[in-house]
This record gives sequence, structure tokens and C-alpha cells, in this order.
Amino acid sequence: MTEAIELALAEIRFDADGLVPAVAQQHDTGEVLMLAWMNRHAVRASLSEGRACYWSRSRQRLWRKGETSGQVQWLRELRLDCDGDAILLLVDQRGVACHTGRRSCFFRGWRDGAWTMLAMPVIPPETLYPKTADPPDAT
Amino acid sequence: MTEAIELALAEIRFDADGLVPAVAQQHDTGEVLMLAWMNRHAVRASLSEGRACYWSRSRQRLWRKGETSGQVQWLRELRLDCDGDAILLLVDQRGVACHTGRRSCFFRGWRDGAWTMLAMPVIPPETLYPKTADPPDAT
Repeated sequence: MTEAIELALAEIRFDADGLVPAVAQQHDTGEVLMLAWMNRHAVRASLSEGRACYWSRSRQRLWRKGETSGQVQWLRELRLDCDGDAILLLVDQRGVACHTGRRSCFFRGWRDGAWTMLAMPVIPPETLYPKTADPPDAT
Repeated sequence: MTEAIELALAEIRFDADGLVPAVAQQHDTGEVLMLAWMNRHAVRASLSEGRACYWSRSRQRLWRKGETSGQVQWLRELRLDCDGDAILLLVDQRGVACHTGRRSCFFRGWRDGAWTMLAMPVIPPETLYPKTADPPDAT
């Protein structure tokens, strides 16, 4: 398993900061949920644990999606693009992806010359995080 | 129109290099086609021309998707994420998104400990580019 994961990593072109952008998509509906960043540790953890793990640039640490909020992304498949410098995660999102309580982080659309809110929170954000938790940058 | 586009730009958080990652998704099927990068000029051009324009990091110039290959992405909607640092383009992709002739750039999946080819080219890549064209990094 560990050896295989090193083979997976060998094809990924991490940038100068050791990061690669990763898009999470709900595997059955096709909804694009969020974009975050992964380093080698995050890819290893995602593949070995079967859930999406990212690298939080704001907190400078590994971030197991849902570790605070419970809004876990179970990993169905990890895909890589032609140049090896972008990742697509097909996931099964429990609850919501966005720290605002919305299903997707991409809830603003440019329509008729203004940013338009396309979705409302489905979970009140204050119930996603206990008061003692780190300030979130996503769930 | 120009003034409105400046309002759109004001909400986008470009990185230290003046770039933001942009995901292109086929508007009706939900297929994630590619990930590329946009700067301010690319966002302006995309919104004013109604087609996806990116910033080519390898060629260091504005890249109107399909300008060489004809594989244009007509823009249906530009969306922005909660933090303003990632863009989702809902597009109508003519032909293929990938310079390999495949519909999507994300054609490799990690399955059973190996990168597995999930799609074959639907257009022979040599027909996408005239011999005199710049070496492509995507179509």
C-alpha cells in the first residue's frame, strides 16, 4: 500500500511550495464542491485513509476535511490531469463542503453585472464548529 | 460593461503572482474538463468576450482557449468560491478540452495501486494543431 502510494506521488507535479490544487466533486451528482490544496502528506493520507485530506495554507497543517465539523468527504477516486499538476477528487460529501454551511463553496455567480448569491446555507455555520475550535477556513 | 467587470475583479483574491486557479466544468453534464489559471486580463477577456480565456504560465501570455485548435469554451457562467480565491467556469466545450485529444484533462484515475487510463482521445492530437503552431500546453 505504502509503496503503491509512492508510485502515485511520483506522477504528481507539486509546485515550488510542494502543493498541487485539488478540486472536489460529488461523485454522483457532478457538483463541484470546493478547491483546496494538497501536499505529499495530504495525498498519502487521502489514499491510505479513504477520505479527503488537504493542506491548510492558512493554518500550515494537514487538514482532514470534516475533522472539526463532521462534514467528511469520503474518497471515491483520485484523478490526475494530463500535466500531472492538478488533482480531481471524486468524493461522497457528508453534509456540506463550505464553511458557510452551503453545500458548495462556489455559491456566487456573476449575473447581470453583479455577484449573485446562488445558494443559501443548509446548515447554520455556528452549529458546524464548537466555540473552542480553530477559526475555520473551510469545514 | 467595463465598469461592471472591475466590480467583478474586486472580489477575486489573486495570489502573489496575480493568478487564481480556474476550473472549467461542462455546464450540462457536470464533467470537470480542466484546471487552468487566470489573471486579471484573463477574467476581463472571458467576461467581455463570452469565452474562456486563461493565462498560460508556460507561454506567459493570454490564452484564448481554442485559439489554435478551435476547441473553444463558450462561457455560460463564472462563479467564485467563498474565499474569493478559486473560480469555477461553467462552459460549453466545443470538441475536447485536453491537448491529448481527450474530452477532459482528468483522464487518469488511481485504481488498484496504479494510474489507470480512463478515456481515449476522441480527436487525434495531431489534427488539433497545425505544425506551425506554438507547442501547446492544452488546446
